[in-house]
Amino acid sequence: MQLVVLAGGVGGARFVRGLRALVRRDRPGAAITVIANTGDDLWLAGLRVTPDLDSLMYALAGVNDEERGWGRAGETERVSAELTAYGVGWPWFTLGDLDLGTHIARTSLLKDGLPLSAVVERLTTRWPLGVRLLPATDDEVETHVRTAEGTMHFEEWWVRTRAALPALGFEQRGVERATAAPGVPEAILGADVVLIAPSNPVVSIGTILGIPGVREALEATSAPVVGLSPVIGGAVVRGMGDACLSAIGVATDAAAVARHYGARSAGGLLDGWLVDTVDEDAVEGLTAAGIATRAVPLRMTDDDATAAMAQAALDLAASR
Amino acid sequence: MQLVVLAGGVGGARFVRGLRALVRRDRPGAAITVIANTGDDLWLAGLRVTPDLDSLMYALAGVNDEERGWGRAGETERVSAELTAYGVGWPWFTLGDLDLGTHIARTSLLKDGLPLSAVVERLTTRWPLGVRLLPATDDEVETHVRTAEGTMHFEEWWVRTRAALPALGFEQRGVERATAAPGVPEAILGADVVLIAPSNPVVSIGTILGIPGVREALEATSAPVVGLSPVIGGAVVRGMGDACLSAIGVATDAAAVARHYGARSAGGLLDGWLVDTVDEDAVEGLTAAGIATRAVPLRMTDDDATAAMAQAALDLAASR
Repeated sequence: MQLVVLAGGVGGARFVRGLRALVRRDRPGAAITVIANTGDDLWLAGLRVTPDLDSLMYALAGVNDEERGWGRAGETERVSAELTAYGVGWPWFTLGDLDLGTHIARTSLLKDGLPLSAVVERLTTRWPLGVRLLPATDDEVETHVRTAEGTMHFEEWWVRTRAALPALGFEQRGVERATAAPGVPEAILGADVVLIAPSNPVVSIGTILGIPGVREALEATSAPVVGLSPVIGGAVVRGMGDACLSAIGVATDAAAVARHYGARSAGGLLDGWLVDTVDEDAVEGLTAAGIATRAVPLRMTDDDATAAMAQAALDLAASR
Repeated sequence: MQLVVLAGGVGGARFVRGLRALVRRDRPGAAITVIANTGDDLWLAGLRVTPDLDSLMYALAGVNDEERGWGRAGETERVSAELTAYGVGWPWFTLGDLDLGTHIARTSLLKDGLPLSAVVERLTTRWPLGVRLLPATDDEVETHVRTAEGTMHFEEWWVRTRAALPALGFEQRGVERATAAPGVPEAILGADVVLIAPSNPVVSIGTILGIPGVREALEATSAPVVGLSPVIGGAVVRGMGDACLSAIGVATDAAAVARHYGARSAGGLLDGWLVDTVDEDAVEGLTAAGIATRAVPLRMTDDDATAAMAQAALDLAASR
């Protein structure tokens, strides 16, 4: 069984870990391919930084910092302090020492001529992740945010302003020249189920969908496409995703996100949609609109709870 | 008074520190310009590493590791361990965390388009060194070593094989396209005294002399050129310089090194030469050969001893 997940960083990683736990327990023959958002990627202090790919790699390798929610466990910041002393980089964007090891290795391999997908494959040989991790694209397509203070890289908006500066819109710089990374369309076309992780619908999932070749593959695949709502009870579970939804005129609401993705039968993305039990009143209307919807607990409190969510998504896909 | 020093890394740094101590004590109006060897520079793990410039910067900033003899004091190696785990870089060439901060900052500034000399100027604004530090060239001219096992970068030969693999010769890769860095010929031409630090005559001083424009300026300058022997009593004081001298057929001997540099009156480099008191028997012959030579204590045991050496060199220059 071929399972494909479109995922952002921290939330996506948590979901994939639950899915992996489910597969290990109940479906040992199934293979998981994760297509990761690369829109947050940036050049910082001369290094290529890929936040979502790293969140996925670290969490699946079990070396992530669970308490802080991002980066490596046991992290220190000696190098970052040096960079700040030299006036290089963004003082408000901390690069941990262990994390910098990854960025240096990645940048070195890119400089050697490897495409990002090959770099990810190379870096993840260090840790058997139990999933195949693919960047959405090998090309540099970075999300920029239009604000009243000018247009800035997504990470500057997200980290420096804590998304408090109202976003007027998002741009995928370089998207017109980009193509999906090798293996991405093939994985989607060959999937038995495609899952949309409960990640940011705008700057994570939306960014992946914007890469030429991805949406076409999702339209063409015979696999059912089932998403999980990142919004529970009118609030984004993790991060500041509501600021992104507002910017594109979508309410912070599980049903509104589903309608934003759209019913596949009407040219949209979704065959199925999971909302949390507190959003049960959305089930009927969405299902009537062509998105088979079920209400199940969607809090990723631990791997067991997340595995149950993944199971519910697979059940919904199978019932299509 | 304009003092110019041609210098390699650790030994050069120690000498310049003594000269700086002398200037601060006795000649507060004098200015020191250090022209540093860049032949040991290399790309490693995608980062531009400049060992001699860093040895000079760290020692003059007072942040060097005195006991180990190289790198930063209080160094750790967390990032290096990550690189090794990813299989990136040279596992036998340790990059400390603090040191990596310098390499990342440098590489970032180079990537922004700054020439190396501007990068050095920018990095050293962090620490008032009390000297002007110039790379011999902004161009990438890397020393390679011919051996029976093939040709390798100088740092691989020096660090991995500990210079135990016999060197058959040295190459300055890229030298034919190189020019002296901005300010280097001007400093030499405008100098009142040019000092040759007791650095490796082959791969430090020899490399600087090989940069197009440097030797021409040394020939043209009206300043006396006085060198200090890195060889005392038939042994190189620091490092494995004897392996370099052997490779070019020069005996490890204070007089032989002077004759290798040559008398300026005969088309060579030196007006004057300081040997250690144990090598006093070389004074007469060298002086007769056109290199005014004096024997003084040449062990750089502390800044005071080194300042006395620098004073002797300036005295010799003044007596010319």
